[in-house]
Amino acid sequence: MTQAVRHDSMRARNLGVVLGEVRRSGPITRAALAEITGLTKTTVSKMVGDLIEAGMVAESGALRDGERGRPGTAVALSGRRVAALGLEINVDYLSACVVDLTLAVRLRYTQAVDNRRASPVETLSHLEELAHRAVEEARGEGLSIAGSTLAVPGPVDGGLVHAAPNLGWHDVRVSDLLGFPVELDNEANLAALGELWFGSVPGDFLHVSGEIGVGAGLVVGGTLFRGARGLAGELGHVVVSPDGPACRCGGRGCLEQYAGQDALLRAAGLAGVPELLAHLQAGERGSLEACQRAGQALGVALTSAVHLMDPGTIVLGGVFAPLFPWIRDPAHETMTSRLGVMRRAVPELTVSRLGGDAATLGAAGQVIHRVIANPWSHLATTRP
Amino acid sequence: MTQAVRHDSMRARNLGVVLGEVRRSGPITRAALAEITGLTKTTVSKMVGDLIEAGMVAESGALRDGERGRPGTAVALSGRRVAALGLEINVDYLSACVVDLTLAVRLRYTQAVDNRRASPVETLSHLEELAHRAVEEARGEGLSIAGSTLAVPGPVDGGLVHAAPNLGWHDVRVSDLLGFPVELDNEANLAALGELWFGSVPGDFLHVSGEIGVGAGLVVGGTLFRGARGLAGELGHVVVSPDGPACRCGGRGCLEQYAGQDALLRAAGLAGVPELLAHLQAGERGSLEACQRAGQALGVALTSAVHLMDPGTIVLGGVFAPLFPWIRDPAHETMTSRLGVMRRAVPELTVSRLGGDAATLGAAGQVIHRVIANPWSHLATTRP
Repeated sequence: MTQAVRHDSMRARNLGVVLGEVRRSGPITRAALAEITGLTKTTVSKMVGDLIEAGMVAESGALRDGERGRPGTAVALSGRRVAALGLEINVDYLSACVVDLTLAVRLRYTQAVDNRRASPVETLSHLEELAHRAVEEARGEGLSIAGSTLAVPGPVDGGLVHAAPNLGWHDVRVSDLLGFPVELDNEANLAALGELWFGSVPGDFLHVSGEIGVGAGLVVGGTLFRGARGLAGELGHVVVSPDGPACRCGGRGCLEQYAGQDALLRAAGLAGVPELLAHLQAGERGSLEACQRAGQALGVALTSAVHLMDPGTIVLGGVFAPLFPWIRDPAHETMTSRLGVMRRAVPELTVSRLGGDAATLGAAGQVIHRVIANPWSHLATTRP
Repeated sequence: MTQAVRHDSMRARNLGVVLGEVRRSGPITRAALAEITGLTKTTVSKMVGDLIEAGMVAESGALRDGERGRPGTAVALSGRRVAALGLEINVDYLSACVVDLTLAVRLRYTQAVDNRRASPVETLSHLEELAHRAVEEARGEGLSIAGSTLAVPGPVDGGLVHAAPNLGWHDVRVSDLLGFPVELDNEANLAALGELWFGSVPGDFLHVSGEIGVGAGLVVGGTLFRGARGLAGELGHVVVSPDGPACRCGGRGCLEQYAGQDALLRAAGLAGVPELLAHLQAGERGSLEACQRAGQALGVALTSAVHLMDPGTIVLGGVFAPLFPWIRDPAHETMTSRLGVMRRAVPELTVSRLGGDAATLGAAGQVIHRVIANPWSHLATTRP
């Protein structure tokens, strides 16, 4: 390493330390930053200057410094310039959102499309249009997009979607088919991170994403559990009944075949979720029974998940959020009757406030968290 | 904090750093230790002196120091004085082992006892006898026991076994019933740690302990995954068939009801594992079919576990180790047919070399790892 490279890497690390502390502490003076980080006041002032110039931090008025009593000008994270694009391809919709550096949601689009009837190229071209629209509108508000993450309903390996059986995708190299750079991640993982950063549940939970597929993301101590190859959390393919109906994954009797959106609508004899909700509210028996059975199957799969993963609480999101009043009780009763002896308490079942937006928000949030952890590489790309 | 306390806590930390480095590096000179740890040579020499006096480290001959070329006397971990006691209560046996500071196994006892026919007090009094025998024999070899951990077949909360349904234990406060201090942990967790420290599988695996109960411990990146409340890994109660036979846990159709040792022997119409092995080796049909069905049930439960936890490899231990030649294929075929589409590769099924000893070894290993991480508190208790 040359002297210059070493110096840059030290500056990069310190810049991350300073910005991280600004995020944690809220409005804070340069003097307090120097004291907390152990850096000199001169170094901190220079770095804060760079961060202000990059629009990542802004002065936020005078603040009296605790013990010393000398007022200083405080700085805080600024949401006025840097933002991130979150994208999602799911089986029956596309969505996009823009989140700024303070994690404020600046815009959100969802578009219903049946992506099963489209080729990967067509779907990705629709997504590209949606992304461009979002980026243009964000630019109109003075925002500059630092990066984007795309949530897909299947396991991901670098830029490749290995298998998204509900989309009919196999080995789709998304990075080659999109006209802009994007990070890929699994929808259920990003939904769990969305719940962690934008939701109301503290740091230990299993977030269940009910869509046409059913996925889950486990957060323990504020960290997403990904397993050895990043493929953990496929709750939708947990075996509910070993000789049950065949699933697109190649297995039989997977949870998706009982509680996935399509399976549920089929059991209720209905075409869409709004119709199902209307029937449930009207107390229509077939729909109530379909939800009862889906909730029981969910309870069986969650019993296995609780025994294996020991989550703090369980948060139901996606389509399970609007359906919560009808599936909560059968799922909870099934879990209680099966888990009661082994555990003092069965994990609580709660509902996500984010519903179907969790994955798109998590996707954007992931970019913001990376920028805050490593502002130097962001500065390097935005400088002339 | 007083000056003296602060100084002690700094010494304690540094002592752990020095001993940890000795363990990692093998024979190493004091000069090299000073260079790696950043401590002064005087400090390192004083600490090495204390560790030699405590019998935790010993001089191991001259070693030439890489660049400098000046030979120095190397020190290495010593197994001659400090040791740990590992204990296990399982449904049909008790066991004890003594492991020294270098993780060499110094002695091992297993005693077949049907603990279902005994009260917790009786079982713990048997265990106490076994422990005393082990400690006496270790003393005869000049070893001093730094601590002990006890593996139990059920979830643990501090000194309390909340529920070990296969033993018939509910809320047994072991710490009050044993005449010596012991740490409690779940058998499946300790077996996974035993595999990590004493086995042959690298750092990403799910270790399955087949006993009368079936448990599992997941190791990711060399760390045991415990879940939010320390209750993760209860593979034996993963639902194989939701309407299957009732289980002692309160559920139905749990894996234990198909592949636990009792269920397997019942299906084969035999009384013990040695008999079952003899029948299998003789190609007796009923026993082969019983193993086939147990292997398939294990494959269904592992399919759910792989989808949820994404382990690197799967290591079968306990009674599944001697039965491996007969249950591996049905389990692997079941997993392959169910997991194939979603995953490029199904996790490999391997056999533990430790068999039924994994938990007892993990229990002793846990004490040794704590002593090495914090030798100061060990010195404090052994000093006059």
